[in-house]
Amino acid sequence: MPATRHEVPAVLRPIVEVAGPGVPPLLALIEARLRRAAAPGDGPVDEVAERTVAAGGKRLRPLLAILVAGAPVDGAPRDAVVRAGVAVELIHTATLVHDDVLDAAPLRRGRPTAFHTHGRAAATVVGDRLLAAAFAEIARGGDPEPAAVLAEASRALARGELLQRADAWRADVDEARYLERCRLKTGALFAAAARLGALAGDRDPDAYARFAEALGVAFQLFDDVLDVVGPPEVTGKARGTDLLDGTMTLPFLLARAESAELAALDPTTIGPADAEGVCDRIAATGAIAATEDRARELVAAALAALPADDDVRRADALALVARGVVDRRL
Amino acid sequence: MPATRHEVPAVLRPIVEVAGPGVPPLLALIEARLRRAAAPGDGPVDEVAERTVAAGGKRLRPLLAILVAGAPVDGAPRDAVVRAGVAVELIHTATLVHDDVLDAAPLRRGRPTAFHTHGRAAATVVGDRLLAAAFAEIARGGDPEPAAVLAEASRALARGELLQRADAWRADVDEARYLERCRLKTGALFAAAARLGALAGDRDPDAYARFAEALGVAFQLFDDVLDVVGPPEVTGKARGTDLLDGTMTLPFLLARAESAELAALDPTTIGPADAEGVCDRIAATGAIAATEDRARELVAAALAALPADDDVRRADALALVARGVVDRRL
Repeated sequence: MPATRHEVPAVLRPIVEVAGPGVPPLLALIEARLRRAAAPGDGPVDEVAERTVAAGGKRLRPLLAILVAGAPVDGAPRDAVVRAGVAVELIHTATLVHDDVLDAAPLRRGRPTAFHTHGRAAATVVGDRLLAAAFAEIARGGDPEPAAVLAEASRALARGELLQRADAWRADVDEARYLERCRLKTGALFAAAARLGALAGDRDPDAYARFAEALGVAFQLFDDVLDVVGPPEVTGKARGTDLLDGTMTLPFLLARAESAELAALDPTTIGPADAEGVCDRIAATGAIAATEDRARELVAAALAALPADDDVRRADALALVARGVVDRRL
Repeated sequence: MPATRHEVPAVLRPIVEVAGPGVPPLLALIEARLRRAAAPGDGPVDEVAERTVAAGGKRLRPLLAILVAGAPVDGAPRDAVVRAGVAVELIHTATLVHDDVLDAAPLRRGRPTAFHTHGRAAATVVGDRLLAAAFAEIARGGDPEPAAVLAEASRALARGELLQRADAWRADVDEARYLERCRLKTGALFAAAARLGALAGDRDPDAYARFAEALGVAFQLFDDVLDVVGPPEVTGKARGTDLLDGTMTLPFLLARAESAELAALDPTTIGPADAEGVCDRIAATGAIAATEDRARELVAAALAALPADDDVRRADALALVARGVVDRRL
């Protein structure tokens, strides 16, 4: 399969090399099926859906499912893992598409969003389509449990989205509530990926789901740090986008505890011209380092709580994923 | 089950009485599970989702699934039929919720929409939640085929929605394209309900899906007639809403062929104050009767094409559904 090397995003390669030769073909299979699921070939929605999926990220959630499931015993790719990877990535993409509609976001990962290029209606419909495709994919296995896992994650994402909007512009949100938002917005789908992988690979679903959830929360913390420190060439969006959207993240919340000036700042008054300056002031308080410390603690605890693994390669690969999150390479 | 009679909407009672005593308990079961699926109990989204589902329509799609499946042979409710009914109604509701968001619609069936009471974000998320719940429900059966049927219908709805928006304000749309839009927007989910019922009852899925699709298209035609003739006490919305949204329906298209004045009218210039007057002018051309003739022909052909049925009650009940659509009681 010569396309295989092509399909593995550069940042995942060190992990994939450790994980073993079974992983790249699975990632390639997931990639191909993702596009087919998004665009089964009936017109204008397909085009937008396919482009949106193709413009996607690093396929970190499918990789998690693959790694947790472990190397196929008989050398054949596990169909359940492929379905899991496809489904979680479709749910992830659908959520991003709908978020972009709600935020009227012009850019995502440095590219124009479906909302920007095709408008509110098309983007809403494409998000619905991707959601439906995710569930169709998981249902194809004929086992009701993975579908329930996916629905549960989908529900958590919806709650996270609403929590974020309920807390918009509220600088008095406490850290616990912020972390709960991260768990719902990001942790839950990481957890679902790991749980589906564990179900496919006959591992302990709860243990791996807990690990992945913590990893997801840490991932979100680092993502929120990136919004403050940029640079835009890496993030594909302007610094301070969260501030301008009213999304109060941990760096800002911690910075307010350190700086009377920031504590006195009404977030609704921050305009595009001030956002970078506010980001600099947040960074000057040490809130970035403090946020990263929290994230690193979460990852360390998650790794330590993983069950002892008979599969050394898998354990090493998962540790590398955790490291990649901590080093902000993922 | 004393709640059972309660659950059957008045307009369905004559049909249900013909169909036999097995139907009301199934409708009641679907109703109860619909609400549980929409609101499994975790906070603010549930409330909105549950209220939206509760404010729903006549449960015509679930009834179709039940009737096509036929009376349970052994007296026990067929779980696959209940799942089918719940899933199609959830998909239907999710689509309405997202449509209302895109149209910024304040009212639906005479009640405030989720968009109106809870805003764009909450309504978008509720629609996503209902979609996910539909697929989780259908997947619970462990058979991949119903999930594929549901995903296909969901795809058609998305295409219909986009087609409608692509054709907005275009008074030069021809009848074939209008009918294709009706097929995608309404016929496809009617067809899915019948197909799922047929799968559950071991009937010919294609034959019943064709019947239901034609019925759905006719239903949409009558719905489009209602938008022109009202009255608002019945429809729960002002007359001419489609005109104001730029949705060019068959009554308007046919009326333009009859009236030079209407043909010269630029639909984008119609304001809320003119809408009723334009509706009256459409009705004066005979376009309402012509549209209803088209719908009646569709239903008659669909009924004639149904396979001869060994189950007389079912055949009678389906004929009554067709009659209810034609008489605009459904």
